[in-house]
Amino acid sequence: MRRTARRGRVVSRSGGVTDKYQPMFREAIERMAPYTPGEQPRPGQRLVKLNTNENPYPPSPGVRRAIIAEAGASLRLYPTPRADAFVAAASRLYGLPRGMILAGNGSDELLTMLFRAALGHGDRVAYALPTYSLYDTLAEIQEARVVAMPLGADYALPLEALAAEQARLTVVCSPNSPCGTAASPAALEVLARRLGHNLLAIDEAYADFAETNALALVRRHRNVIVLRTLSKSFSLAGMRLGLLFAPPPLIETLLKVKDSYNLSRIAVAAGAQALADADWMRRNVERVKRTRAVAEERLRKMGFTVPPSSSNFVLARLAGRDMGPVCAALRRRGVLVRHFPKSVFHDALRISIGTPAEMAVLFKALEPLIKPVSAARPRRRARGQARH
Amino acid sequence: MRRTARRGRVVSRSGGVTDKYQPMFREAIERMAPYTPGEQPRPGQRLVKLNTNENPYPPSPGVRRAIIAEAGASLRLYPTPRADAFVAAASRLYGLPRGMILAGNGSDELLTMLFRAALGHGDRVAYALPTYSLYDTLAEIQEARVVAMPLGADYALPLEALAAEQARLTVVCSPNSPCGTAASPAALEVLARRLGHNLLAIDEAYADFAETNALALVRRHRNVIVLRTLSKSFSLAGMRLGLLFAPPPLIETLLKVKDSYNLSRIAVAAGAQALADADWMRRNVERVKRTRAVAEERLRKMGFTVPPSSSNFVLARLAGRDMGPVCAALRRRGVLVRHFPKSVFHDALRISIGTPAEMAVLFKALEPLIKPVSAARPRRRARGQARH
Repeated sequence: MRRTARRGRVVSRSGGVTDKYQPMFREAIERMAPYTPGEQPRPGQRLVKLNTNENPYPPSPGVRRAIIAEAGASLRLYPTPRADAFVAAASRLYGLPRGMILAGNGSDELLTMLFRAALGHGDRVAYALPTYSLYDTLAEIQEARVVAMPLGADYALPLEALAAEQARLTVVCSPNSPCGTAASPAALEVLARRLGHNLLAIDEAYADFAETNALALVRRHRNVIVLRTLSKSFSLAGMRLGLLFAPPPLIETLLKVKDSYNLSRIAVAAGAQALADADWMRRNVERVKRTRAVAEERLRKMGFTVPPSSSNFVLARLAGRDMGPVCAALRRRGVLVRHFPKSVFHDALRISIGTPAEMAVLFKALEPLIKPVSAARPRRRARGQARH
Repeated sequence: MRRTARRGRVVSRSGGVTDKYQPMFREAIERMAPYTPGEQPRPGQRLVKLNTNENPYPPSPGVRRAIIAEAGASLRLYPTPRADAFVAAASRLYGLPRGMILAGNGSDELLTMLFRAALGHGDRVAYALPTYSLYDTLAEIQEARVVAMPLGADYALPLEALAAEQARLTVVCSPNSPCGTAASPAALEVLARRLGHNLLAIDEAYADFAETNALALVRRHRNVIVLRTLSKSFSLAGMRLGLLFAPPPLIETLLKVKDSYNLSRIAVAAGAQALADADWMRRNVERVKRTRAVAEERLRKMGFTVPPSSSNFVLARLAGRDMGPVCAALRRRGVLVRHFPKSVFHDALRISIGTPAEMAVLFKALEPLIKPVSAARPRRRARGQARH
């Protein structure tokens, strides 16, 4: 009997255990705030959904056919542990050997694997803020120390400051959410070199909507990892498909923390076909980019500051004005956009680019909400401004 | 600049970094043996596959229809974070409220979440050995201390010894792999009570093939977690669907380490339909159990010791005789079964129950491999016996 009283457990005389403060899980987990998922409309709710950067256009018809072909008796068998057909298609599309590719159940799972493998208690992870909030969550789970950098002027990613930190893991979301700005591959290459043996993960979830990307760095730098998702450009958020590219030794290490069969047979088939149909994706990306240009222009005319976006969303900012009430009013009018109340961007809305028709609904709802206030000078009295 | 020289990093005069021993990941991960997935036949390979406890019968036809219905434009949208339709179907089938149910990308993901949430560096996790090898891997990733117990007489799960350990997390695989034996719900309830505030996870991957199960314990004990999978009885190994049942506070904590969208829209739809069609599953389970009874009988006649199985596999043992060569010979004859060379069961084969036709192929291949040796007494000279 090795009963101990650590963690506040009190062993009574009878050998029973009585209450005091008694966490059942790791204290770092018990401390974490409870999980609050973003709003997902229920089936039948008719909302214009511009809040989670989904693609307004459907996936390629080939994806549906591939899923149907796989939806039979073979589902009784385990999938290939490394999602062979999906990885082979990625190898063809991106021109990298299979040994440099890891498939995930969304890029979220790949980020989870990366943080689990790289970071222990007290290890340092560096990234710019604001960015994708999952990094904070994963760091907290690993009990890692977060070194957070503010964005530079014009929403630039602070690559110099990140290089100086020499954290065990540096994460750059490029194009970054929620501001949509991207770092140049050349600047990322300098960062990779300066980080030496420390890992640099470049989260390129939105790269297909940008003019450049940093994928080539995984061939030239042994510390570089590039992550992609099929959720945005490939219109497959509902299928959960992500890809991680890295030098083979990094892939081998990450495999150690991978669940044995992390992608279903259906996901493997759908992912392989989506990549084979990349032209379909590119056409949709071009449509989104055209709509984005129109939206940026119109938002600026309304008085918003809009950093030039390399993503499928735009950040529309009215400096100093809390956008919470506008976000809520849009919601009442059936339009979902994203607001970050605790962020430096509390004075902004992140608006995913929908179809032209969806954007028309957005603007019809948004313009009356903005105009009265811009008329109501002095701006200091604008409602909500004092909240932060 | 907070450059440090820990982990052997050497900073040169120029500020560049030169090599020495330079792990990029956590040392616990770097130390781990590389991942070696079990054999999955390539498409077109005609093998009798009795090595990974898949179901020989297909999933319900309704599952195919549910997948096809979901395989459209809605895949561009994220799934429900908590796999609503799947969890609702589980709530109906198992008679537990939704707040006591967590859906996973296979029960492997749920085990991963449990170990991540419960175990930090040096925390103790207890289980019997041999058992599902994933527990070792997950404990190693968390840098937990494994308290391993041998099985008792007649392959009994050592519940008394586990209770005495009072580990932060106790895992009981019941029915256990690879021996197929189950603990009684009453004995598990005693264990749950004795563990007090320490977690008891009961991995019931094979419970549908047993006469009893311990699911009801999650209503009566705040420290009990029960895990199920749709990979075995529901014939959906290829779909990656698992379920975890626990008191609501445990579910809330586990949600903190869940990836936001861990199940695809297709998986949610397939899982919901499979549970709605549970009668289809039960019919297949009855067929497997009938075939299992015949196989146990036949193996015993051949001289094997076969513990009575509550699972969809049997452990066939020839005490002291290394079964590695037999496993390899079966492979050459087109039959895959499982051998555990480093285990105390190196003298056994774990044989998944296939169709009667598949079992006939197995026995036709197996009998000539066993007979000559049992004839070649003295048994001490049997090939392979000295290997362990």
